Amino acid sequence: MDKRLSVLISPGNWDPKPWIIGLSASELIDEVHVWPTEANLDRVELLLVWQPLPEGVISKLPNLKFLSSMGAGVDHLLGDSQIPRDLPVMRIVDKFLAIDMTNYVLMSLMIYQRNYHQLVYNQKISNWDRIAYRKVKVGILGLGALGSHLANQLVNSGFEVYGFSRNPKKIEGVKTWSGTDLDTFLAQPEVLVNLLPLNDHTRDVLNYELFMKMQPGSYLINVARGGHLVEKDLIKALDEGLLKGATLDVFKQEPLPSDHPFWSRKDIIVTPHVASVTTPGSAINQVLENCANFLNNQPLAYLVDLERQY
Amino acid sequence: MDKRLSVLISPGNWDPKPWIIGLSASELIDEVHVWPTEANLDRVELLLVWQPLPEGVISKLPNLKFLSSMGAGVDHLLGDSQIPRDLPVMRIVDKFLAIDMTNYVLMSLMIYQRNYHQLVYNQKISNWDRIAYRKVKVGILGLGALGSHLANQLVNSGFEVYGFSRNPKKIEGVKTWSGTDLDTFLAQPEVLVNLLPLNDHTRDVLNYELFMKMQPGSYLINVARGGHLVEKDLIKALDEGLLKGATLDVFKQEPLPSDHPFWSRKDIIVTPHVASVTTPGSAINQVLENCANFLNNQPLAYLVDLERQY
Repeated sequence: MDKRLSVLISPGNWDPKPWIIGLSASELIDEVHVWPTEANLDRVELLLVWQPLPEGVISKLPNLKFLSSMGAGVDHLLGDSQIPRDLPVMRIVDKFLAIDMTNYVLMSLMIYQRNYHQLVYNQKISNWDRIAYRKVKVGILGLGALGSHLANQLVNSGFEVYGFSRNPKKIEGVKTWSGTDLDTFLAQPEVLVNLLPLNDHTRDVLNYELFMKMQPGSYLINVARGGHLVEKDLIKALDEGLLKGATLDVFKQEPLPSDHPFWSRKDIIVTPHVASVTTPGSAINQVLENCANFLNNQPLAYLVDLERQY
Repeated sequence: MDKRLSVLISPGNWDPKPWIIGLSASELIDEVHVWPTEANLDRVELLLVWQPLPEGVISKLPNLKFLSSMGAGVDHLLGDSQIPRDLPVMRIVDKFLAIDMTNYVLMSLMIYQRNYHQLVYNQKISNWDRIAYRKVKVGILGLGALGSHLANQLVNSGFEVYGFSRNPKKIEGVKTWSGTDLDTFLAQPEVLVNLLPLNDHTRDVLNYELFMKMQPGSYLINVARGGHLVEKDLIKALDEGLLKGATLDVFKQEPLPSDHPFWSRKDIIVTPHVASVTTPGSAINQVLENCANFLNNQPLAYLVDLERQY
């Protein structure tokens, strides 16, 4: 293994520094380029992508061997028709991702359940009002690695939990539905948490028609992708009282434009895509692990199937 | 079992209605009196206490057979010298108590870790600032039923957890100290959660001297009892920067007086004793369970030892 890899990074608005430093420090890596660059990219074998490259760039990488997302999702790669269908594509599987995501949802649920914002306001006016709280029924849309982890945790935390997934899933203590039973599932919970992957089947799934099928006055938590939500439908559902409120961590356009109506609504909590943040350190280690696999002619790990879209 | 019990309740500022209704509906109960009352109490066999009775009242209950706290704690009974030392005393063991308490602490930890109040402020000014967060080291003071439950949950939620208890305790994934090692324990965490029982050994334990032994800029969460905290020492420690902030759910005087300095401090989050609320329903069922034990000459359950103070 005396060969070393040439890498091209397309970080978009992410800070490339930790990646450059982390990768360059490895003896598996020869050189690191950051897009946009004028450098000769003939030697590039590994492409790391957060922001998809402009049309035509990938075809100018004659030596490309594999590609990796720089974060957990791969939805930013799905629509990229310039990625050769036979190119191995890997994603980052951060072990803290599920924990951080679950913690964020738990925090949001408890802030909702215990009316935390009212407690904060009451402190300002020295008001000792012991706001009562009840058990909350929570529905989880999507029972993949993240959704299942959340479901187990919520059961431990005393919530009544319902789940829906495309294919049947069994989780202890959780009532689950799948396939064509979406409507039955939607009628159960008072809080709906979206953790679906984003693909052609799930884009715009959180729309007015779906909100109509939920219990009147329900609450929405979206921590998956902005592409799942039809934003004007949410505003309509809130204005009509179909929904009581929403906590949103992801948006169609990020950063959320400063004139977007979500910012100023009292019934929407906006957070800036912080439910779970992949740390470069653990992501870089996974990329380097796969570099070693490649250089040693071993099978690559963490591969995704862009055709199946997850 | 044709005998039925006469009950006296001393609810203090709690609402006695659910207790009157719940107890009266049972065929084990003959009559329910609520203190203060002019009624003849000669027949009272069971005394339910939230607020201790005035001096001399218990000695006027010639037929008293056992006593129960109306909530989880018994610290309000410890100083009551009129309770005969041979009278069986029971407490309420609410199965949701540990879950609710753990949920509250988790919420507080995540609000601290993720700077939630800053996120809420940022939404007001349409500011997309992705505030980073780190792993947090949490120390738990007191590893009884509540502290142990919390410790296990925090390990699952990715926190680094330290614990201290009077007697040695082993909890998987938690570094624990006991006995004379309090100072070593205090030097580890950046957030200290108090879950000690309140008794002569623990009263005023959260004082300036203890804060001095913690890491500079630590954070305090008190969910046990107001009697654990020396309030002026907390204010001193905050003003000097020894501590960065505190979340307090319990206070020496409750309701917290409206002119108390805690209300207006930006570095203290005040909540009105809502971390965990015993629901009358489950408490009443436990009392009735013990009424059946008593009437059937079975041993009483949930007994506490007022001498040992827990």
